[in-house]
Amino acid sequence: MFSPKFVPFKRAVWPLPLPSALLLLLLGTLYSTGRLQAADSAEQPNIILIFCDDLGYGDLGSYGHPTIRTPHLDRMAHEGMRLTDFYSAASVCTPSRAALMTGRYPVRSGMCSDRRRVLFPNSLGGLPAEERTMAEALKAQGYATAMVGKWHLGHRPEYLPTRHGFDQYFGIPYSNDMDLVPGSPRGAAKSLEPEVAWWNVPLMRDEAIEERPAQQKTLTRRYTREAVSFIKEERKAPFFLYLAHSMPHVPLFTSPAFEGHSLRGLYGDVIEEIDWSVGQILKALREGGMQENTLVFFTSDNGPWLTQGPAGGSAGLLHEGKGSTWEGGMREPALAWWPGRIPAGTVSSELACTLDLLPTFLKLSGEQGSPKPSLDGYDMAPILFERRASARPHFAFYRGTRLFALRMGPYKAHFLTKSAYGQDPVKEHEQPLLFNLHRDPSERFDLASDRPEVIQAFMNLRKHYLNEVSVAPSQLERVE
Amino acid sequence: MFSPKFVPFKRAVWPLPLPSALLLLLLGTLYSTGRLQAADSAEQPNIILIFCDDLGYGDLGSYGHPTIRTPHLDRMAHEGMRLTDFYSAASVCTPSRAALMTGRYPVRSGMCSDRRRVLFPNSLGGLPAEERTMAEALKAQGYATAMVGKWHLGHRPEYLPTRHGFDQYFGIPYSNDMDLVPGSPRGAAKSLEPEVAWWNVPLMRDEAIEERPAQQKTLTRRYTREAVSFIKEERKAPFFLYLAHSMPHVPLFTSPAFEGHSLRGLYGDVIEEIDWSVGQILKALREGGMQENTLVFFTSDNGPWLTQGPAGGSAGLLHEGKGSTWEGGMREPALAWWPGRIPAGTVSSELACTLDLLPTFLKLSGEQGSPKPSLDGYDMAPILFERRASARPHFAFYRGTRLFALRMGPYKAHFLTKSAYGQDPVKEHEQPLLFNLHRDPSERFDLASDRPEVIQAFMNLRKHYLNEVSVAPSQLERVE
Repeated sequence: MFSPKFVPFKRAVWPLPLPSALLLLLLGTLYSTGRLQAADSAEQPNIILIFCDDLGYGDLGSYGHPTIRTPHLDRMAHEGMRLTDFYSAASVCTPSRAALMTGRYPVRSGMCSDRRRVLFPNSLGGLPAEERTMAEALKAQGYATAMVGKWHLGHRPEYLPTRHGFDQYFGIPYSNDMDLVPGSPRGAAKSLEPEVAWWNVPLMRDEAIEERPAQQKTLTRRYTREAVSFIKEERKAPFFLYLAHSMPHVPLFTSPAFEGHSLRGLYGDVIEEIDWSVGQILKALREGGMQENTLVFFTSDNGPWLTQGPAGGSAGLLHEGKGSTWEGGMREPALAWWPGRIPAGTVSSELACTLDLLPTFLKLSGEQGSPKPSLDGYDMAPILFERRASARPHFAFYRGTRLFALRMGPYKAHFLTKSAYGQDPVKEHEQPLLFNLHRDPSERFDLASDRPEVIQAFMNLRKHYLNEVSVAPSQLERVE
Repeated sequence: MFSPKFVPFKRAVWPLPLPSALLLLLLGTLYSTGRLQAADSAEQPNIILIFCDDLGYGDLGSYGHPTIRTPHLDRMAHEGMRLTDFYSAASVCTPSRAALMTGRYPVRSGMCSDRRRVLFPNSLGGLPAEERTMAEALKAQGYATAMVGKWHLGHRPEYLPTRHGFDQYFGIPYSNDMDLVPGSPRGAAKSLEPEVAWWNVPLMRDEAIEERPAQQKTLTRRYTREAVSFIKEERKAPFFLYLAHSMPHVPLFTSPAFEGHSLRGLYGDVIEEIDWSVGQILKALREGGMQENTLVFFTSDNGPWLTQGPAGGSAGLLHEGKGSTWEGGMREPALAWWPGRIPAGTVSSELACTLDLLPTFLKLSGEQGSPKPSLDGYDMAPILFERRASARPHFAFYRGTRLFALRMGPYKAHFLTKSAYGQDPVKEHEQPLLFNLHRDPSERFDLASDRPEVIQAFMNLRKHYLNEVSVAPSQLERVE
């Protein structure tokens, strides 16, 4: 039985016993001249992070969608681990990606706001230079780093991926529905027959615009080609590849080969092309003999955009979607694959989130020493490799800068609620709503009156978050 | 693209070319003395039908539940076929089981009513003797037949399974929440700590009461033991086993070995014990060398009973549950397993339903000749064995005796709607609600205004149903 109690905010993420620390120090000295040699890459696995945009909890075959077929992702689940309780650290794009890249709640980096929820083309802000991204940290460990896809952490030159640790970049700098061309039809983004010319989104290579408007129909295919090329080129080195698909964010575009591919219609076509893409990545790894030395992690930035009609996805049995701190807004499909290291065909309901990927990756890269005190991530190794309990004692659901809800063990308490995109005011719950998510994933049965001791633990934890997590000046409110 | 058109009501279910018919006639003559010999059983597969009670579309691992673990059912899906668009033919117990047993809509047999939705302990009625059950039909083909579990098609002697084609019977004759003992607590059935003594449900062997009250905690275990014994005894003969679990209908009971087994709580414990049971059945088949000569089909009678709080299940992404003609009330998890015959790891979204099991089973048994004109089932062989399109052109959603909705291809039209258990009146839709279930399984986006030709096809089809499907006098209104 879960016994709720207040857990100190920050456990050491990977305390090392002294002999191991010395050994690593020695290794660090030996190889400190830069990229590690091929012979040692077995100790530094390649890392591939595949990140979707607005993918719902219920949108994959292995998560129960009736008519979207995802055989490659299902095989990935069958050969690896499927996580059921994995969260993105925000319910919309920019803060979610800031959390992913830094391992820190986005309030700490100023990558959120209560007025403008994400960056727009007229934004002046971006991820501050002093933030350490997973790319920077892995690069420091000798990794070749590449990003392919949607960035959305600042499109001004000083904020681009190449300024944040990526050796190379190919993709769109913000959402594919931004830069709407004047005169385009109302509701263009949610159209099931959108036209490329309705948007003027740039496609960039490194720091230059290569194509504008981006020919969105072939983005998934070209992202995949770029990613596979990088994998093949970097075969001898440890590498980090961040492949952030622009899809299934509206407007939905798919290459001709996938038009009409899915019973689910255009949304399904788009997911099935992403599934194909995952198949291409895993095939390249197998063909390159890298399958036993590469961790592949697949997830998304936030839940399905339910206001987009049939162009939006499904949160399955979860309540609400993108923009909301209910489960449907932030709980994501998540698959982890590393044959030989991650036990095949496992399902884990341990608590984890995108904040945890940075410390997990860094530990695999061999980084030594203590994490920064303001890092919010926990190493996922116990979950992924050891079938042990999550090191993460709790998780916070922020909306903009405000702490709406907290999860601790199987329990979630909502202090504030608000519909995802409605005009209703924020509702403050004097007695928080309380759900046991293991038993009630749909958040239907409020237990607050029955469990005063759990409520009390949440009240203490909330105070702790409010005291300890400082809110940086917003980058999202800096506009032209 | 689906082109809606009116399809004549009854196609021949299995027209045989003349030479095949003659061959079967010859074989029939050769073996007409009774049970076929072991050497010939390869042509007559064993058939096992596992039927749950109130299992929701979202309640298995392979259908996306986050915290209910069903490794044996998932393996069954992986080795066989998972159906995504399979329906029970009613949204509550008695009519659903009548349809299953007879292959006919329950209005035809009188096994439904607009006043009493199911049979109760004070009911006098039951499945009429003139109805041909799948047990009777298979018995006539030389099968040994056994039923284990919940019947609910009449508990008076003349209606028991042994009077409807089953050689033997072990189980409860109606729902496990009936026969509430006076003085038992309010809301006893939905309790998460129910006591066996609160109900006085009988457990029967053949036509005699063996135990009363049924010790419900061990029902799943004892049903399983009984089923496995039958499989082992009948190893040399073709057999038909109908295993109708009493669970997860409330009150929820599980054997001590499964108490606390699931993160999902008691409901999950109960499902995980059913999963164990499926594992025992498949293990017995493998150990007996019968895996390549046995079709196992797993499904349930209707959707989750959402009014039961945490003691009820989940319909996943589907709308509503038990009692409703929305998808959540009648669409079910359905797995088909027959190594060597059903391609492994397949997922099918072809339209099928419990009405189709009788003709499917009978064809496998070698039954010749034309089906009765009032049979509502279609042979599922094209779906199961040939990866072809379903022979079923449409499906009707009745509530009591009234036709509420119809499905044709991917489309569903609602003529009448009503909440599952609410006091609201039946709502008549002058223009039916229209959904494309392949694209919109959650029934969120009404297409009626955009697709007048589809609506017209549904109006014609509705007339056809109203003309052709006669409503027999109700058996459910015959009470003490």
